[in-house]
Amino acid sequence: MSMRVESDSMGTINVPADKYYGAQTARSLANFDIGGERMPTEIITAFGILKKAAALANHKLGLMDEKTRDLIIAAADEVIAGKLADHFPLVVWQTGSGTQSNMNVNEVISNRAIEMAGGQMGSKKPIHPNDHVNMSQSSNDTYPTAMHIAAVEALEGYLFPRVEVLRATLEAKAREFADVVKIGRTHLQDATPLTLGQEMSGWVAQIDLAVKAIKATLPQLKELALGGTAVGTGLNAHPDYGVTVAGEIAKLTGHDFVTAPNKFAVMAGHDAFVGTSGALKQLAAALMKVANDVRWLASGPRSGLGEITIPENEPGSSIMPGKVNPTQSEAMTMVAVQVMGNDAAIGFAASQGNFELNVFKPVIAYNFLQSVRLLADAAKSFNDHCAIGIEPDRKRIAEHLNNSLMLVTALNRKIGYDNAAKIAKNAHKKGLTLKESAIELGLLAGEEFDAEVRPENMVGPTAGKT
Amino acid sequence: MSMRVESDSMGTINVPADKYYGAQTARSLANFDIGGERMPTEIITAFGILKKAAALANHKLGLMDEKTRDLIIAAADEVIAGKLADHFPLVVWQTGSGTQSNMNVNEVISNRAIEMAGGQMGSKKPIHPNDHVNMSQSSNDTYPTAMHIAAVEALEGYLFPRVEVLRATLEAKAREFADVVKIGRTHLQDATPLTLGQEMSGWVAQIDLAVKAIKATLPQLKELALGGTAVGTGLNAHPDYGVTVAGEIAKLTGHDFVTAPNKFAVMAGHDAFVGTSGALKQLAAALMKVANDVRWLASGPRSGLGEITIPENEPGSSIMPGKVNPTQSEAMTMVAVQVMGNDAAIGFAASQGNFELNVFKPVIAYNFLQSVRLLADAAKSFNDHCAIGIEPDRKRIAEHLNNSLMLVTALNRKIGYDNAAKIAKNAHKKGLTLKESAIELGLLAGEEFDAEVRPENMVGPTAGKT
Amino acid sequence: MSMRVESDSMGTINVPADKYYGAQTARSLANFDIGGERMPTEIITAFGILKKAAALANHKLGLMDEKTRDLIIAAADEVIAGKLADHFPLVVWQTGSGTQSNMNVNEVISNRAIEMAGGQMGSKKPIHPNDHVNMSQSSNDTYPTAMHIAAVEALEGYLFPRVEVLRATLEAKAREFADVVKIGRTHLQDATPLTLGQEMSGWVAQIDLAVKAIKATLPQLKELALGGTAVGTGLNAHPDYGVTVAGEIAKLTGHDFVTAPNKFAVMAGHDAFVGTSGALKQLAAALMKVANDVRWLASGPRSGLGEITIPENEPGSSIMPGKVNPTQSEAMTMVAVQVMGNDAAIGFAASQGNFELNVFKPVIAYNFLQSVRLLADAAKSFNDHCAIGIEPDRKRIAEHLNNSLMLVTALNRKIGYDNAAKIAKNAHKKGLTLKESAIELGLLAGEEFDAEVRPENMVGPTAGKT
Amino acid sequence: MSMRVESDSMGTINVPADKYYGAQTARSLANFDIGGERMPTEIITAFGILKKAAALANHKLGLMDEKTRDLIIAAADEVIAGKLADHFPLVVWQTGSGTQSNMNVNEVISNRAIEMAGGQMGSKKPIHPNDHVNMSQSSNDTYPTAMHIAAVEALEGYLFPRVEVLRATLEAKAREFADVVKIGRTHLQDATPLTLGQEMSGWVAQIDLAVKAIKATLPQLKELALGGTAVGTGLNAHPDYGVTVAGEIAKLTGHDFVTAPNKFAVMAGHDAFVGTSGALKQLAAALMKVANDVRWLASGPRSGLGEITIPENEPGSSIMPGKVNPTQSEAMTMVAVQVMGNDAAIGFAASQGNFELNVFKPVIAYNFLQSVRLLADAAKSFNDHCAIGIEPDRKRIAEHLNNSLMLVTALNRKIGYDNAAKIAKNAHKKGLTLKESAIELGLLAGEEFDAEVRPENMVGPTAGKT
Repeated sequence: MSMRVESDSMGTINVPADKYYGAQTARSLANFDIGGERMPTEIITAFGILKKAAALANHKLGLMDEKTRDLIIAAADEVIAGKLADHFPLVVWQTGSGTQSNMNVNEVISNRAIEMAGGQMGSKKPIHPNDHVNMSQSSNDTYPTAMHIAAVEALEGYLFPRVEVLRATLEAKAREFADVVKIGRTHLQDATPLTLGQEMSGWVAQIDLAVKAIKATLPQLKELALGGTAVGTGLNAHPDYGVTVAGEIAKLTGHDFVTAPNKFAVMAGHDAFVGTSGALKQLAAALMKVANDVRWLASGPRSGLGEITIPENEPGSSIMPGKVNPTQSEAMTMVAVQVMGNDAAIGFAASQGNFELNVFKPVIAYNFLQSVRLLADAAKSFNDHCAIGIEPDRKRIAEHLNNSLMLVTALNRKIGYDNAAKIAKNAHKKGLTLKESAIELGLLAGEEFDAEVRPENMVGPTAGKT
Repeated sequence: MSMRVESDSMGTINVPADKYYGAQTARSLANFDIGGERMPTEIITAFGILKKAAALANHKLGLMDEKTRDLIIAAADEVIAGKLADHFPLVVWQTGSGTQSNMNVNEVISNRAIEMAGGQMGSKKPIHPNDHVNMSQSSNDTYPTAMHIAAVEALEGYLFPRVEVLRATLEAKAREFADVVKIGRTHLQDATPLTLGQEMSGWVAQIDLAVKAIKATLPQLKELALGGTAVGTGLNAHPDYGVTVAGEIAKLTGHDFVTAPNKFAVMAGHDAFVGTSGALKQLAAALMKVANDVRWLASGPRSGLGEITIPENEPGSSIMPGKVNPTQSEAMTMVAVQVMGNDAAIGFAASQGNFELNVFKPVIAYNFLQSVRLLADAAKSFNDHCAIGIEPDRKRIAEHLNNSLMLVTALNRKIGYDNAAKIAKNAHKKGLTLKESAIELGLLAGEEFDAEVRPENMVGPTAGKT
Repeated sequence: MSMRVESDSMGTINVPADKYYGAQTARSLANFDIGGERMPTEIITAFGILKKAAALANHKLGLMDEKTRDLIIAAADEVIAGKLADHFPLVVWQTGSGTQSNMNVNEVISNRAIEMAGGQMGSKKPIHPNDHVNMSQSSNDTYPTAMHIAAVEALEGYLFPRVEVLRATLEAKAREFADVVKIGRTHLQDATPLTLGQEMSGWVAQIDLAVKAIKATLPQLKELALGGTAVGTGLNAHPDYGVTVAGEIAKLTGHDFVTAPNKFAVMAGHDAFVGTSGALKQLAAALMKVANDVRWLASGPRSGLGEITIPENEPGSSIMPGKVNPTQSEAMTMVAVQVMGNDAAIGFAASQGNFELNVFKPVIAYNFLQSVRLLADAAKSFNDHCAIGIEPDRKRIAEHLNNSLMLVTALNRKIGYDNAAKIAKNAHKKGLTLKESAIELGLLAGEEFDAEVRPENMVGPTAGKT
Repeated sequence: MSMRVESDSMGTINVPADKYYGAQTARSLANFDIGGERMPTEIITAFGILKKAAALANHKLGLMDEKTRDLIIAAADEVIAGKLADHFPLVVWQTGSGTQSNMNVNEVISNRAIEMAGGQMGSKKPIHPNDHVNMSQSSNDTYPTAMHIAAVEALEGYLFPRVEVLRATLEAKAREFADVVKIGRTHLQDATPLTLGQEMSGWVAQIDLAVKAIKATLPQLKELALGGTAVGTGLNAHPDYGVTVAGEIAKLTGHDFVTAPNKFAVMAGHDAFVGTSGALKQLAAALMKVANDVRWLASGPRSGLGEITIPENEPGSSIMPGKVNPTQSEAMTMVAVQVMGNDAAIGFAASQGNFELNVFKPVIAYNFLQSVRLLADAAKSFNDHCAIGIEPDRKRIAEHLNNSLMLVTALNRKIGYDNAAKIAKNAHKKGLTLKESAIELGLLAGEEFDAEVRPENMVGPTAGKT
């Protein structure tokens, strides 16, 4: 492999000639041969935005000349576009401030800009990784800023649209099946009826609550650390830098980012991620419930509940011919479990800051972005390959409904809870229908029973009705 | 023990004559001899409010006569006031819908009301536990409603005021020590300076973010399930019941509770608790960071960092005479850990709903309310016994500051990052001061050094200043 | 309240005259008004054993006279017997080393012994809480020792016997139902048959694996810190103290406790609790699976799976008459969730040691002992009120079995996977039996089908059979 | 892209011509576009071993001819060697039984074997993916078997050797620094002395306990599900198949795998992974403590504890010249946090089995193997780049030791705890040395003090010594 010499404050080191990264990236590669999980792409992209915004802000504040600015922007644009993905080889398990990934970006932009300017890679001229690309910055404020940019973009640009697709499908299905009266189930036991549309409306409402909960956490994530530099004081940065650069980032992303009113808090804690991850966990819990309901309602085909059918996407078994499994539910519930594990890691990591810095930044970013990605992808997959194909098995639904002993609840007001209970228990014991039981016990005549016990009248408020 | 006979739909059972509870409570006691953790008091109180509001609403809607209403209210008021605490013996580990605690409340209010009316306990006359106290309700909508009432009251009435006390103390200290320039620390390593006030302002800001995060989750908690009855459809309830009873609860509590727009979601999921618990975890993470900073800054007395002193509240060691320990930090960090464990339980539990019901309600309530209580109490304890007594050790702070090699950062703009690094490294290697090192290396004259390296000028943005 | 004056190295303080505890307990009560969760009883009992063993060892090593020893033992015996429970009011959320609870025990034993000796409480004569009761000890080695004693006793004396009862019931049921051929279910979908006995044998085996896993962690817990004193070096203790006192503890408890070969590790980490808690979590996962299977198999009564029945222990609903719910499963699964949350707290806490001490001891003890207690109680409750009454619904089981399309798997070897799949899919599509489908497709004659597809032949290995 | 047609029981589908996988893999790729986390390599390798062992066993039992066996073995050997890595594109978030990855392996081995035999890919002749490669197997017993093989190999072959390297380094250092007397610290506060060797011996002992704990869980992992086929009964497998194939796997791997005595348990639960993950968490907790101690002891360089120095591996700051950070500790503690999150996911997932199957298999495998890999790699990295370079700063250590007030503990036996406390408190208040304070208070003469207070005599048991 052809190599080139790069240097930093510790001396020189060889790097592959075809890579833009420099000495510090090379050292990190040598020093952190752990795992293999790369720094998330979303972070690299966010760093591209950040470095571009920083150049714009530094120029605006009179600290950087136009030519330097434009070279940095040109290289940063390639980072944003994902063209330089191969030049970001570092893993998550590095320095806890993400310093090495910040330097990776500084080095790549520096060398790519040098190349564009016709200079010599590694010369740090005309674009120095620290003095220019990192101007007015420290890893300590850039990495958390990149975390926040990446998080907001992932939520707004990736998660919400995909969850919305699933939500819309479920809502349409809920409307479509608004008239399908079915048995309700509480404690897994037969309960009073509702419509399939109502049941599915609950899924929609759970998702809505969760999405609202996530959105309610966005303001925190939109507060950026940039301008705090090394310890939060803003040393070596212009007094207007924080506001200016946040404005540039807002412009570049279209999201209303602002500079954090207190930089110490957002560099030393990453508590905002705990709150948002908690809301993601809320979504995971909701989706787990939906996916579980779907697979249970679709259980069978002969010996399960079998009240709905779902698409058959693949052979279900390598040994049992003809078996079809609720695999989209399985992927979704595995994702939900993963999001819960990730949340545990995030909470722990965020609590471990000391003084002016929390050095668990990459592990927080890694888990958070994985949670977002998995929830989004699973929502889309579940939508496309399962939810859109949900259909009621009306015959089975009617059987379950009509057999149900819990229709007896409709009699509470006419004959009282205790007598109603007698009818149900007698029916259960002897294998009778409720009507047969009511008549046998002499509590109601058949016509009275028929007049009172109408499932279709039991799917809404009834008291006080005449 | 003197006993009395009570009955339910399963038959008769003996209960202690001096207890108001009835058959179902007695059965639960016999069937669930698990642990010993009682249903949280906050839930019982909330049930008192709920039953009172239900009676008011039922009367308003013409379903209950005035006398019945007033008897229920009189008994419910005693529940709210905590006078009947001994009559709620059930544990958390019971039916997952909290049915038995709902019935415990129904039975106690029924029997106490019967007693007030001069009737015979257990006779269910004139106040029947199901037909009157539980009118228009099901455990499935009352227990989650009680959870929401209890949660909002615990947050608004207990947590926020206590956290605010701590926050105010820390903010006052931050202002008081705004001029104490000290060394910053990142990665536990010496970094550029800031003031002690700035450092503490970060603590305040972390707490503020967390409290805001918790508050942002309140709207979900203020949506009540009542009106859904058994499965969310509102069967056996008046169409206006949900709105009416939520209005009564709002009036009784002073919090703007509303009826949940979708009852299925709030009975079958308890995702709102996941979101709020996530925000509580954010607060736990913030307080853990604060408590850790405090104990590390107070470490010593001779061989630690020793930059602040904290009150000595108790002898620190049973073997080492004169030792004083940061015990309030220890209690606080143990609480933070507990909140994280509780959050894991809540997320898991909330994801396990099936169809029309989640049957992990009591375990969610138990963990959630413990988290709130512990955070509130620990904040107050930490405030009263630690935060109010924090004082800087100005001598030690000055020593640390003046010895620091990271003051060299101030030279970046004058001599560049690489030369500045040389000065620091040379000083470190030879045990010199920065100034000595700078002069030895011929990079700056002594006066130049003194002009540039002024810690008090390094605690804010500097670039572009003249 | 009548008070008495007690003193410690910080001065004097009033304590209730009717309490044996002294100044440090009183200070802790004043300084830690947090939560209300008391130091677990098991810890107090273990401290009684420990203090008795310490007196025996100190006397054996010639450091304590006989009279002092016997007075301490007399008082310690009352602690062990639980007679002094009211004198241990401290909460979990105190100093992280448990110092205050160690001193609480020292003070109570001192004063009770003084009382027995006819002395004056608070005089520290003839039995001094530090110099005598705490002789050769530090909180730093006593509290972890008490944790280990309490843990081993709770596991061996409380958990294992209760789990064994449930295991024995399930195994007996498995044998009883060894001939009940039923449908298998994978992915919640119908699969090839097995017997109910086989299904239940899986439950037994999961429990067995978990109990074995817990037992495999006991050796760690049996290593005691006592003898390490303040920092693990054994300062102020006799060189033979560790071995001697561990021997006494072994004798008193009947468990083979030994002195830890490295005291630094067991005072600064509590990693052993992480391992054991992980094994408890394994048990929780197993019991959650069992409890879920039971409630799903018992779901219905009309519209669920309904393959088993379980005891009806209480009315299931406050609104739906005659409803019976799987409440023991619900309590069990809530317990499982709690154990998982506790495990998260324990792991986090155990990782937070610094230098010579981990100061998250009480929160570890609290969570660990709650997990043990809840698992044990829930196992017993589930056994007594559910497992012992499990009965198959043979009629329902037969219906499910005979309708199953997955019996087609028996044909794989005769006609190949692909043809077998065709039969199943055709039957599913047209609502046929497998036999009808096979004949319709001309793949087998009816007699051939009957000869091959015999569920009772499908519940064991078959290949190679003739 | 050149394509070829493959088929399964659902019909035909195009696959890339240069890939060995077939229809079911292609369907999975289309249906599960989630995340991007690939099925772990360790699982694929384990499947290679499994398929080879299955062919050997099937042949031994007379079910497979020699030629078929050898073709399968030849292809499986390439899977084991990692030569076919590009042909396993499936993600973790697929069917929860891992069916699609089992089929992926079946398809790749089938097609590669067909290619070797000169046949036509996709023809399933002469080697059929189901009838031959999957003979006597089901996904339901192969995937868990692959999980167990992968887990044992990862632990024995990857984790233990790497942790052992770190352990050996730390033990050598502990011996090397056995004479370096230093201050102890409890509650972060100065405590009685110990040697640096003793302190490090505690690290070694914590690691030893954790490794022992992990090893104690291996027997469970060595029990294999193979032979259970679809639901655990062994349908379509030879009665001797389980034992035979486990023997082959043992032979191939060198680990003493056995067939699980109860197949239902190991297909429907994966509780063994919970236990082992708990033990991995114990190791994570231990390593977190070690890494934290190291970075705190190395904190400084001027204003921290500074008692040890660690290697400088990279520039520490993009803004603060000359800064060096404890980055290996940071990577290690991030790994510890990740392992805790993974453990939460594993416990949750393992509890969610139903009836004859747990369908959270891939998420369990993914988290478990990541934990193992990260712990192993981090141990090695921490060893190579940090632990081997730990050196004491003897000057700083001596300063801390000699300043310490806790040396006063040595006086307990001579002048009693209360007098000793007075000396310490007086010294603390007035900034005196202990000796000055003792003399000022008239409690000891200078020579007496010097005779008693010798740090080097305080690092071991002392009572009873003369």
